[in-house]
Amino acid sequence: MYKLLHELQVELGERSYPIIIGKGMLGEFDLSGYVGGSQVMIVTNDVVAPMYLEKAKASFPGKTIDALVLPDGEKHKDWQTLNLIFDALLENQHTRKTTLVALGGGVIGDMTGFAAACYQRGVPFIQIPTTLLSQVDSSVGGKTGINHPLGKNMVGAFHQPEVVLIDTDSLQTLPPREVSAGLAEVIKYGLIRDTAFLDWLEQAMGQLVAFDSEALGEAIFRSCACKADVVGQDERESGIRATLNLGHTFGHAIETFAGYGNWLHGEAVGTGMIMAADLSLREGSINRADYDRVVRIVLKAGLPSQPPEQMTPADFMSLMAVDKKNVDGKLRLVLLKAVGEAEVTSEASPENLKATLNAFCYQDN
Amino acid sequence: MYKLLHELQVELGERSYPIIIGKGMLGEFDLSGYVGGSQVMIVTNDVVAPMYLEKAKASFPGKTIDALVLPDGEKHKDWQTLNLIFDALLENQHTRKTTLVALGGGVIGDMTGFAAACYQRGVPFIQIPTTLLSQVDSSVGGKTGINHPLGKNMVGAFHQPEVVLIDTDSLQTLPPREVSAGLAEVIKYGLIRDTAFLDWLEQAMGQLVAFDSEALGEAIFRSCACKADVVGQDERESGIRATLNLGHTFGHAIETFAGYGNWLHGEAVGTGMIMAADLSLREGSINRADYDRVVRIVLKAGLPSQPPEQMTPADFMSLMAVDKKNVDGKLRLVLLKAVGEAEVTSEASPENLKATLNAFCYQDN
Repeated sequence: MYKLLHELQVELGERSYPIIIGKGMLGEFDLSGYVGGSQVMIVTNDVVAPMYLEKAKASFPGKTIDALVLPDGEKHKDWQTLNLIFDALLENQHTRKTTLVALGGGVIGDMTGFAAACYQRGVPFIQIPTTLLSQVDSSVGGKTGINHPLGKNMVGAFHQPEVVLIDTDSLQTLPPREVSAGLAEVIKYGLIRDTAFLDWLEQAMGQLVAFDSEALGEAIFRSCACKADVVGQDERESGIRATLNLGHTFGHAIETFAGYGNWLHGEAVGTGMIMAADLSLREGSINRADYDRVVRIVLKAGLPSQPPEQMTPADFMSLMAVDKKNVDGKLRLVLLKAVGEAEVTSEASPENLKATLNAFCYQDN
Repeated sequence: MYKLLHELQVELGERSYPIIIGKGMLGEFDLSGYVGGSQVMIVTNDVVAPMYLEKAKASFPGKTIDALVLPDGEKHKDWQTLNLIFDALLENQHTRKTTLVALGGGVIGDMTGFAAACYQRGVPFIQIPTTLLSQVDSSVGGKTGINHPLGKNMVGAFHQPEVVLIDTDSLQTLPPREVSAGLAEVIKYGLIRDTAFLDWLEQAMGQLVAFDSEALGEAIFRSCACKADVVGQDERESGIRATLNLGHTFGHAIETFAGYGNWLHGEAVGTGMIMAADLSLREGSINRADYDRVVRIVLKAGLPSQPPEQMTPADFMSLMAVDKKNVDGKLRLVLLKAVGEAEVTSEASPENLKATLNAFCYQDN
């Protein structure tokens, strides 16, 4: 029998949906009430399928279930793989009343959500995220999409799920590196808006990296609550939602430079948050002790603190210029005003930015 | 100097937008007030570009304008061509404040609109439809998308434009066959909801097929007003909007069978409307005189009245089963309750449907 740990509601008017967090949920918790029609298509990957696909099917009693198993990995978050979802839907004659189910990490969630946004101009979908990163980040807020050779997540849609089901048991099979990557986003919530949560994380980090179920459940709940609160205020990222991108502009540049999939997203965000903190320090927004606190918690989570050795300041500048957070040519960055408070600004001094890049890159231009 | 003929508003709450109809508009009428940022990307095709691209550019004074010329034709309404738009946007560092402009017929409008819906999860776009079909149909209502080998428009989004600019002068360069195809949708509006408009069309059809500017302007305005009214009541096609699909289920089957682009969409809809009228007659909803009236006006517009010679009833059945208007396996059709009134039904008798298919197909199963 499952054990329900937490439940919260993402408030988005008629697009509101619940996030259900528990232990032993998969296959035990009945999701069929969230399926409007009779058809379900579960999309997963070849790593997750052997462990969880049959269990996931058991969560939809009474429905006609098809399943599609995609190759695992960020490098498959592309048109070709997305099209396999449309092929499967059409070959199995799924109508516009079908429900798609994303069973896997962020790549599966983003692609399946985008497929749901586009199939016959939009069908419902359900998220069952199985990695820490996807549980605390990509399953909340409705951002979906795929990568383009010239930039990450450049093609996509906002499309909210009907429900998100998080089973903490699925974390027990994750490699430690992926848990660390997920913790980068967890730390981010503390840094941008919740000092009390950051205090708790500094205490609990040892348990978190040791896969302690209870600690992980609490971290997921508080992260989702942070993100749900932000997204509820600003679904389309016209304002406060952009602060969720702390570390992401530097991080995306690192991911693109390294080639998708070589650095995990969370690893790049970990280093990116340290770089953003460094720039915040140079801008005079935070002090040295704040900066050290950021570095310490990122390192304690087992995350890297420097970009790839071959990467130059010029690489950063060129890769950040096409980052989608830029508006009309100005480089927008999320910086810390304090530990627990972030701001979006296009006004960071170019000299300070250059100094940060020089300090973090092994190579000159 | 341009001459403004008509202006109407599509009422969709915060997504409302105007349709501006006139003579000599392109290059003369200033659209820059509808562009939020500084960047514009005009997407057009290799038939339209030589005639209208430079003029279109002149409608955006003060903006940074890029242009992309795609190959012409329905067969290019696919992933590969759509990706060329994303490539061009990223190569030219277009940000999320860019505006896309669709200059061309329905294929350009649907693809450019879908690219706008997906680029960086959604950017604004403007429609400048240059064919009669796109002016009276696809430029109103926000349906965007691409084809899949297993079905037309199977992948897409609802995405409303900022403004639609219709220049009746652009019709003067159209082949007669394309004007006829556009008239199929014009006739449709009369058949489903506006008997007075149908009366007028029966009088004016001779002028319309002779490219009379004033008659065409009037037909466009009344068609757009019909469609804007329907879409305003039901943006996401949960109810009345589905009546706009009169003739389309049969028509899509014809288009798919013939191979995209061999039959024009409007030609297939013309034949499809006659088949729908035939089924309505067999169902006892309309009488023989009504049916004859439908056949007469479709023929007068220069449209075909029978499906391709090689097409069998079995072809129809198999191609209609995956049509996206079906909900949970039931074949939904738009039928006439009277001339000027349509209904969506899943209750048509299978025997009558079979009789209609047998009557229209040259071949048996």
